[in-house]
Formats: sequence, C-alpha cells, structure tokens
Amino acid sequence: MEKPSVALKKITSYRVIYGDTDQMGIVYYANYLRWFEKGRAEFLRQIGLPYSTIEQQGFHFPVVEVSCRYLESARYDDLVQIESEMCECRRASLTFKYAIWRDSDRSTIATGMTKHACTDLTGRILRIPKILLEALEKATV
Amino acid sequence: MEKPSVALKKITSYRVIYGDTDQMGIVYYANYLRWFEKGRAEFLRQIGLPYSTIEQQGFHFPVVEVSCRYLESARYDDLVQIESEMCECRRASLTFKYAIWRDSDRSTIATGMTKHACTDLTGRILRIPKILLEALEKATV
Amino acid sequence: MEKPSVALKKITSYRVIYGDTDQMGIVYYANYLRWFEKGRAEFLRQIGLPYSTIEQQGFHFPVVEVSCRYLESARYDDLVQIESEMCECRRASLTFKYAIWRDSDRSTIATGMTKHACTDLTGRILRIPKILLEALEKATV
Amino acid sequence: MEKPSVALKKITSYRVIYGDTDQMGIVYYANYLRWFEKGRAEFLRQIGLPYSTIEQQGFHFPVVEVSCRYLESARYDDLVQIESEMCECRRASLTFKYAIWRDSDRSTIATGMTKHACTDLTGRILRIPKILLEALEKATV
Repeated sequence: MEKPSVALKKITSYRVIYGDTDQMGIVYYANYLRWFEKGRAEFLRQIGLPYSTIEQQGFHFPVVEVSCRYLESARYDDLVQIESEMCECRRASLTFKYAIWRDSDRSTIATGMTKHACTDLTGRILRIPKILLEALEKATV
Repeated sequence: MEKPSVALKKITSYRVIYGDTDQMGIVYYANYLRWFEKGRAEFLRQIGLPYSTIEQQGFHFPVVEVSCRYLESARYDDLVQIESEMCECRRASLTFKYAIWRDSDRSTIATGMTKHACTDLTGRILRIPKILLEALEKATV
Repeated sequence: MEKPSVALKKITSYRVIYGDTDQMGIVYYANYLRWFEKGRAEFLRQIGLPYSTIEQQGFHFPVVEVSCRYLESARYDDLVQIESEMCECRRASLTFKYAIWRDSDRSTIATGMTKHACTDLTGRILRIPKILLEALEKATV
Repeated sequence: MEKPSVALKKITSYRVIYGDTDQMGIVYYANYLRWFEKGRAEFLRQIGLPYSTIEQQGFHFPVVEVSCRYLESARYDDLVQIESEMCECRRASLTFKYAIWRDSDRSTIATGMTKHACTDLTGRILRIPKILLEALEKATV
C-alpha cells in the first residue's frame, strides 16, 4: 500500500496551559510537535492499535523528519483540535500529516508532517508490521 | 541583501539532561527546536546584537516555518554542538539553517531550518531592522 | 476566609505522551508540575472562573512555593486523574493541594501543593479578588 | 556517612531561552526542576562520577520528593547560576539542596531540594553505591 485510497483522518483536542506559552504570549513553537505526537497517538488508538501495543510487539516508529508551518498563534486556554492523517505507508516508513485548529473560530493555526522509520527496539530498520496494515485496512473500509 | 555573500556561522554547545530524553532512550524530537532557538540566540549574541536588544527596539522574529531531519540520536549526557547560519535575509523575513553534531565523534545528528517573519510587538509585519543589517555586515567583513 | 469549611475538589484527566517520559521509562519529574497547573486551571474553570478571566481582571497568581512527593511512576499512555483542592485562601495568597492517580488501578502516583501570591500584572501584591471569593462561596454551597 | 562534615557545593550556569519562559514573561515554574537536575548532574561530574557512569553500574537515583521556593523571577536571556550541594547521604537515599542566582546581580531567585531513592534499574531499593561514597570522600578532602 503506497497511499490509503481513502483519506483516514482522526481528531483529538488539547487545552493550552501556561507551560505551553512563551513570553510572546503565544504557544512556543516546539510544543506543536508535542501536539503532533498526541495526534498520531490518538490516530493509532482510534484505529484500534495504540502505539504502546506496537511497541510491545517490538516495533518503534522514530521520527526521521518533521516540518511545521505556523499560520496563526495558539494562546493560553485555547482549545485546539489536532487532526492527524496517515498519508503514506511504505515498506519501512510512514508519514503523518497534521492540521491544528483553534476550536472557537475553526481557524487553522498550523499544519505539518512527520515521517517515521520503522525499526526494532535496537534501531534496525524493519518492515511496517502487519498488525498496522490490517488495522488501517479495517479502519478505511 | 538577499543572501550574505560570505556564509556566517556561529557555534554554541549544550549538554543533554534527563529531561530532554524520552523512553526510547534518546532526545525527544521536539527538543531539537529548543536547540535551534539556542543556536540562533547565540548567533545574534555573537554578532553583537542579542535578541533581547532586538525586542527592546520593538521587533519580534516569530517562527513561521520549521523543518528538521533526524539523522542520528542524541543521548543522555551527550555534549552537542549547535551550528547556526543566517542563510537568507529578505525585506521582512529571515531564515536560519542549523546543524547539530555530537561533540565526541563529530557526527551530524540533525539538520534543520527556521523561517521567521519580522513584526512589531503586536504582530504587524515590519522591515528587518537596520541594526540587524548593520550587525550582519560588520560580522561578515 | 481562612479555609473553606467544605473541601472543594475538582478532577481532570490527562493522557501521558512520549514527550512526558524520560529514558528511565517514566514521566520526568518536572512534568508533574505541568499537571498541577492543569489541575488548578480546571478547578477554576469548574467553579466558573477560568484563570484567563482572572488575568483579564488584572490579577496574577504566581507560584511562590511548590512541593511534590512521587509515590509511584506514571508511564507512557497512562491516563492519569488530577485532583485539585483549594485548601487555603488568605488575604493575599492561596494554596492548592493535588493528588495524581493512575486511572487504571486508582493508585496514587503523586501528591503535592502549590502556594500562590496574588499580584497585579506588574508583580505588586494585591488582595485576593472578590470574584474568586464569590465563586468559591457559590461552589461550596 | 549521615552528612558530609564539609559542605560540598558545585556550581554550573544556564542561559534562559524563550522556550523556558511563559506568557507572564518569566521562567515557567516547572523549568526550575530541569535546572535542579542540571545542577546535580554537574555536581556528580565535578566530583568525578558522572550520573551516566552511575547508571552503567546498575544504579538509579529516582526523585522521591522535590520542593522549590520562588523568591524572584528569572527572565529571558538571564544567565543563572545553579549551586548544588549534597546535604545528606543515607543508606539508601540522598538529598540535594539547590540555590539559583541571577548572575548579573547575584540575587537568589529560587532555593529547593530533591530527595532521591537509590534503586537498581528495575526499581528495587539498593544501598548507595560505594563508588559514590568514595567519590564524595575524595572530593571533601
């Protein structure tokens, strides 16, 4: 499977705390990567395969590349929605796309992507596990 | 000035703490963006214009885009070197490039870039301040 | 009011992400203070007075003291419950107590407290605002 | 050894980045615990026994208790000094005390302590390792 034929998107939400902001009064740019992680974790949970299960099976998906565009600013106490989509799933890597919205006005705050390798617990490259392919297939039906 | 004719690179170092790592035993991917920030802050300090001075003059350089490639893993207690280069300086934006090395074996751990807008303290787009252009010129001579 | 006559406790929950853990495989100790913040923010929201409203009225509650006891470890993907109680409210300070439980087995992971000054936005000590006292009174009835 | 007869204090420094601050314009309170960790790591390195070596020998010192008093605020770009002292070393636990100063005016910003258990890598309580006792003894001579 190169690309899921049907886009598979899952959504989760997060409330901004003080600890996420910086002195510019907005969320510090590195914290969006925490939200990406939360987004893909909830994506996997929602298709029935929590990342903790993937790890128990001996697989890791370390991030090999990330990018993010900051369109607007998230602020203290904002409720943000994190939309995650697995947009590519190759032999030994997979890619997620993200969109972050402010819940109050539905405006897109940021978009981004992460590319992941598939490895065993020692870092050796592995094929994407079958349990993931099966969970994706079931979820896209 | 579109691009400094002479590449202007500055280096600073950081020692990895426990709080930077995650349960995979490596530095959590979002923390590299903290290092990019440290890198560009030290770049500006080393050309004689600390970012705090830029802010006092009424300017902000919010990040509008970031990307990072993770080539190897930084681990607990590693001393990493952060090399920062201002690779583009346009009318109202500027771009930094980064390379992170492990000090012990000089291997490159990650590379990345950040693109910044130039704004006033309320977020309105401004031209890059003259004090920055002058500091860059002095530093490249 | 020295101490609310009826203990007023509010609960919120949080799912542990990778970015919260460290290489010991457990949540990094500083991150519990983020949970305390989330706990007291939700406490204030649940009594009808979000902290953002308190700030808009010109008040800050900076932390002047914190303590935490770590009884067990929170781990990746744990759902934790954060219980917050305003246990003291003096002329110009207030104190929260916290208990963190693992949701799966209801075991207490950590307990702690934060003491806060009440100041204006420049840091000058102020009396606790009436809107807070009124919200507390309404909530304890 | 209950208490080192001579107070053994070690100092390290840290430059505040944007990512450490919050929208109050000061360092977020949880980040002081990162500084405590940096302080005790450098303490151990300076007595010749880096924490990474302790771990390689099969020991962990998980934090079982922390407290911090915030006296003044650290701000963006402040250089802070972190003074760490091992103030107690019992059979199976040890305690560090910390003082954080602003370098520019030598004012104390925060004081605190952490208490640590001594365990093996699975969390079982162990006696403090001899290599630590010996390193402390050598350092206090």
